[in-house]
Amino acid sequence: MALNIPSISFPKRLLMGPGPSEVDARVYRAMIQPVIGHVDPLFLECLSQLQQMLRDTFRTSNKVTFPIPGTGTAGMEAALINFLEPGEEAAVVVGGVFAGRMCEIIGRCGAKLTRIDIPWGTIADPDQVRQAVRGKNLKVLGVVHSETSTGVCQPLEPMREIAQETGALLVVDTVSSLGGLPLEVDRWGLDVCYSGSQKCLACPPGLAPITVGEHAMEVLRNRRAPVQSWYLDLSMIEKYWGPERTYHHTPPVNMLFGLHEALRILQQEGLEASWARHRKCHLAFVAGLEALGLTMFVKDPALRASTVNTITIPEGIEDAKFRARLMERFQIEIAGGLAQLKGRIWRVGLMGLTATAASVLLLLSAMESVLAESGHGFDAGAGVAAAEKILAA
Amino acid sequence: MALNIPSISFPKRLLMGPGPSEVDARVYRAMIQPVIGHVDPLFLECLSQLQQMLRDTFRTSNKVTFPIPGTGTAGMEAALINFLEPGEEAAVVVGGVFAGRMCEIIGRCGAKLTRIDIPWGTIADPDQVRQAVRGKNLKVLGVVHSETSTGVCQPLEPMREIAQETGALLVVDTVSSLGGLPLEVDRWGLDVCYSGSQKCLACPPGLAPITVGEHAMEVLRNRRAPVQSWYLDLSMIEKYWGPERTYHHTPPVNMLFGLHEALRILQQEGLEASWARHRKCHLAFVAGLEALGLTMFVKDPALRASTVNTITIPEGIEDAKFRARLMERFQIEIAGGLAQLKGRIWRVGLMGLTATAASVLLLLSAMESVLAESGHGFDAGAGVAAAEKILAA
Repeated sequence: MALNIPSISFPKRLLMGPGPSEVDARVYRAMIQPVIGHVDPLFLECLSQLQQMLRDTFRTSNKVTFPIPGTGTAGMEAALINFLEPGEEAAVVVGGVFAGRMCEIIGRCGAKLTRIDIPWGTIADPDQVRQAVRGKNLKVLGVVHSETSTGVCQPLEPMREIAQETGALLVVDTVSSLGGLPLEVDRWGLDVCYSGSQKCLACPPGLAPITVGEHAMEVLRNRRAPVQSWYLDLSMIEKYWGPERTYHHTPPVNMLFGLHEALRILQQEGLEASWARHRKCHLAFVAGLEALGLTMFVKDPALRASTVNTITIPEGIEDAKFRARLMERFQIEIAGGLAQLKGRIWRVGLMGLTATAASVLLLLSAMESVLAESGHGFDAGAGVAAAEKILAA
Repeated sequence: MALNIPSISFPKRLLMGPGPSEVDARVYRAMIQPVIGHVDPLFLECLSQLQQMLRDTFRTSNKVTFPIPGTGTAGMEAALINFLEPGEEAAVVVGGVFAGRMCEIIGRCGAKLTRIDIPWGTIADPDQVRQAVRGKNLKVLGVVHSETSTGVCQPLEPMREIAQETGALLVVDTVSSLGGLPLEVDRWGLDVCYSGSQKCLACPPGLAPITVGEHAMEVLRNRRAPVQSWYLDLSMIEKYWGPERTYHHTPPVNMLFGLHEALRILQQEGLEASWARHRKCHLAFVAGLEALGLTMFVKDPALRASTVNTITIPEGIEDAKFRARLMERFQIEIAGGLAQLKGRIWRVGLMGLTATAASVLLLLSAMESVLAESGHGFDAGAGVAAAEKILAA
């Protein structure tokens, strides 16, 4: 046996990557409520409350709204495979890594994929999408609301219109938007949305909230073949979360305790107040970055997600070294780019409990210091001053 | 918004159902180590340690050994779908609900299933299994080590021989055995085993440890079609847990902290000492039950799993009412039977931190009291006295 492994004991980091975000101590405390049986009436009551709070957060009355027992990718997979059968057609608007992942999952269903590639850092042109899906018998149109790999926020209503015109279900990745960016599932007519617990909801990773509208549930109920995954079959999970309470799997009880508390915190703040906080932090951070002479990867301010902030790495700065110095000197984690953006951008998450005035000022000061190490000069404190103007407003 | 939802606050229960089991406070403390980034070198070191401890627990040197980010059923699904392609053949020995679930998952892969049904409460007759698979081109033979729905422990070496004769991979459900019952993955030549965190490992539910031998990994690498699930594709998850550390999904960081500590506790006790403890508690509990005039559902003592104890509900006792009284009066949770055993048996888990002398004595006393309420008379304290003789030895 490998004895003498010490207990974990990490120094505190400030998590400012694109998730996981910082977590309130209240959530940790809820997570260590001792385990309770998964059919205990008290636990089932807790699940009903959690469900109601999730519906409020998605702005929906969808009955089928609950966390999938897995991380965000499990939510993505559930949101696609339940509605696609072999040979059926799906289209995805691809402007980043996570939309690309939707395509990979669709490929594994045996569905026929129309991939609508758009330049990374931009949103979809509705005419291009309309053109690409014309004449197809689409079952699913997949889009990403806030693309965690690029920092773009895609307007959803034009996509809903196209889905409606073609008779497709609109499946939306809201992993880095739920709770942090305006999202109106019912008002915008979104059929299926999935998310992750570790971003704007400020809970540790491990759960993937999902909401499914009645029309999508009908599509699921009318399938010819069973869903390829037993674990992620929404028609079965629904029966545990619905009034039947039929045992399907043993849920991750303590993670659900944590999400219950995280959603209570969000409700106490108010959903719209949370959206406003995320936006204010974002605007302040961008103003600060620009005062430091840095430029945002997403050129048009109107297209930027408040939650995931992407910064073009300036000439002469080494990506990995810069991030390592932020960690060494200030214990701050930010992330680099993925795929074609590797080495080209930094990604800063301002989500959940990370989206605070304090985090924004601290990161700007820290970035200024580390940039100065590489000989990048500017008026000392310029970043913080610019941000502070917005934060104080 | 549904305001005014209170924070969760449940009375303490003693979890004596077939999982989740009681959890040590050390595990809860580890779980609230603040979240750390999933590519942070300190976290990756923690994962390597966790992996080594899991290998020790499975008694294997399999490189591919890690927890799947989901509950036990996610482990089951991963253990099957990675090794089966449409049209291929699989066989499962079915003596309970969880073997039945293996069959359902296999059906959804498009594989051809040979279902070898055996009476619930017994083990497989190797000749019957040999006969059933003769002449088939089997890719997978599925068996359950400790069937959580019946309390039977299936000897694995005869099954391994049959798998070897037919060239099939042996896939074993060790959900309620890992850490509590003797299990020797390498010595017994088991190709794939999966488990759950919430049973003998004494961690909350949410993770599914899996181990995959080199031969099975070769089968996976030589697939013609990609695995149907992206989330559960072991060839991708392996690259995150292996030296490449390629990002696949954001792992449930805090659950992994908990499992790390639970495995440390197990290592400090010693694996064989844990097996012995589970066995002693089981034998004491059975002696106590028999002194109370109750009978075990699994007739042959040699076939009983120490971990899941199944008791035939005596004539005149109402299942649900009996369990409700145990909960009301003593805050003890035990479980009823599933499927064909509903209303016929009780299931008592003596796993992980629930497998203690104290739990055994308490439950026997409590059962005696509740049985007495229904007019079942016996020498007062007979159950406890019989158990105590074994516990004190």
